[in-house]
Amino acid sequence: MIAVDWGTSSLRIYRLDETGAIRARREAPSGIMSVADGAFAETLEAELGDWIDDAPIVMSGMIGSRQGWREVPYAECPADVSDIARLMVRIAWGKGRCAWIVPGLSCRDGASVPDVMRGEETQIIGAVAELPEGEAMLCLPGTHSKWVRWRDGRIAGFATAMTGEVFAVLRRHSILGRLMAEGNDAHDAEAFAAGLRRAGEQGGLLHHLFGARTRGLFGEIGETTLPSYLSGILIGHEIAALAPPSDRRSGPVHLIGAAALVGLYREALASCGRDSRIIDSDCVARGLFLLAVHLPSGSDDA
Amino acid sequence: MIAVDWGTSSLRIYRLDETGAIRARREAPSGIMSVADGAFAETLEAELGDWIDDAPIVMSGMIGSRQGWREVPYAECPADVSDIARLMVRIAWGKGRCAWIVPGLSCRDGASVPDVMRGEETQIIGAVAELPEGEAMLCLPGTHSKWVRWRDGRIAGFATAMTGEVFAVLRRHSILGRLMAEGNDAHDAEAFAAGLRRAGEQGGLLHHLFGARTRGLFGEIGETTLPSYLSGILIGHEIAALAPPSDRRSGPVHLIGAAALVGLYREALASCGRDSRIIDSDCVARGLFLLAVHLPSGSDDA
Repeated sequence: MIAVDWGTSSLRIYRLDETGAIRARREAPSGIMSVADGAFAETLEAELGDWIDDAPIVMSGMIGSRQGWREVPYAECPADVSDIARLMVRIAWGKGRCAWIVPGLSCRDGASVPDVMRGEETQIIGAVAELPEGEAMLCLPGTHSKWVRWRDGRIAGFATAMTGEVFAVLRRHSILGRLMAEGNDAHDAEAFAAGLRRAGEQGGLLHHLFGARTRGLFGEIGETTLPSYLSGILIGHEIAALAPPSDRRSGPVHLIGAAALVGLYREALASCGRDSRIIDSDCVARGLFLLAVHLPSGSDDA
Repeated sequence: MIAVDWGTSSLRIYRLDETGAIRARREAPSGIMSVADGAFAETLEAELGDWIDDAPIVMSGMIGSRQGWREVPYAECPADVSDIARLMVRIAWGKGRCAWIVPGLSCRDGASVPDVMRGEETQIIGAVAELPEGEAMLCLPGTHSKWVRWRDGRIAGFATAMTGEVFAVLRRHSILGRLMAEGNDAHDAEAFAAGLRRAGEQGGLLHHLFGARTRGLFGEIGETTLPSYLSGILIGHEIAALAPPSDRRSGPVHLIGAAALVGLYREALASCGRDSRIIDSDCVARGLFLLAVHLPSGSDDA
């Protein structure tokens, strides 16, 4: 089968054999935001190229959002692999081609404010072999980081933090950015650790952000290391608010995501005494395979 | 004398009599960011117009910053009116004209991270007649809100929160802005109160921000009221972190600033059981008058 992880800014395609093992992979910057005039079918066919045959295609991520190919209603937490598979939607296009889109997940945080994910549910389903029986906590850092409670084979609930996006807008558009060097940010372990420590002090995030300005202004943190300090402040606040309390029973936090970012979270969790384990982010292909297996029988007539 | 409050985006000029009473006032959008090529003297003379005579001129605000007319080193907390007056700097320009610039204030938050203000120290000095003997807490909301501890006639220390700027960059540049109507934001009391309540819940600011997105996405908060919800979340977090604990001894929070914004903070403080008192923001003119009175004798030769 063909497994497609189609997000806002990138497209990853895997060719899987009948056991779900990855035989080949492709990656392109053809995220849904780069697709003009709804030309999703054309984009997918172009990226598949010579891979096009009769193999079933299953897709997850923002491709199922309002801005994607087809808006697929969210499944609700708690949800297991078959709850999610049941709500997959089949789309068909020219020459008899078709594909399935995985729904996102929603949950209610204390029954008051809703929360949503699209794509992460598939990564988590694909990580099931790595998760313990009973309870586990996962963290999928990114533009919108997800903290996910796993219980008895289900996604029990989750909370999203806007950490990555807040970093990006402050970096680019606030007074903090003016004290930072142009170009790509290299990681500075010392400044990052200082930001993490700062997040543990009194005064709150909005005050700590201004402190990044004054420390830059006073020359205490240089223009190439200030981004790491800011990153430490933000990730430190995210972890303080959303990571489970560190006790012997809670087990490690399971991290899934881009290698560099996952490394930062692992460092941040360690600095406050919390264990973590990294799960390979190719688990999204495994998740798409398991969801395809759980497609309700006869559903290809849907 | 002429009292000048010269900030980043605006310029306010007061003509005072010998008792410090305001005789006339002018306001212009000629903040320091709008002054090209360091033409501060020309700008000031143009705004003064027919007011130009031998009256002494005293200025406070970002005009004393690195981006202003002359960078004036900060006075350090704790500081009273004479400590600040002692560090005023005299500048002279063509035709024998001169003016004094008030220094900003710096303090060390727990001896680790520095904090700074420019302009607010003058407003506080000008509010002295309204403050109790002993201790008081002031809040000067704005792009960078100041929470100031006043003790025995001195500015004892303060903390800045980047609340106003974080609101502006999220409003304009983040995914939250896409769910908000274009144009000026009207205040919606109900959405603002909902944001304040949300700030009191678990999950932290970075999670609550994402909740503004999902509540917009699910149609629970409309595109014209979402800005007020976001504002409530941010101000609620600022107050929770920086306002003094509400007990009988702490007294009201003294608010100084633009009328609409001060009204929001008063509402927010009341919603968590804290008293507040609004001080007229013309106190900046009174502060400039008192600083002029405290100029060390003979200092006009400096």
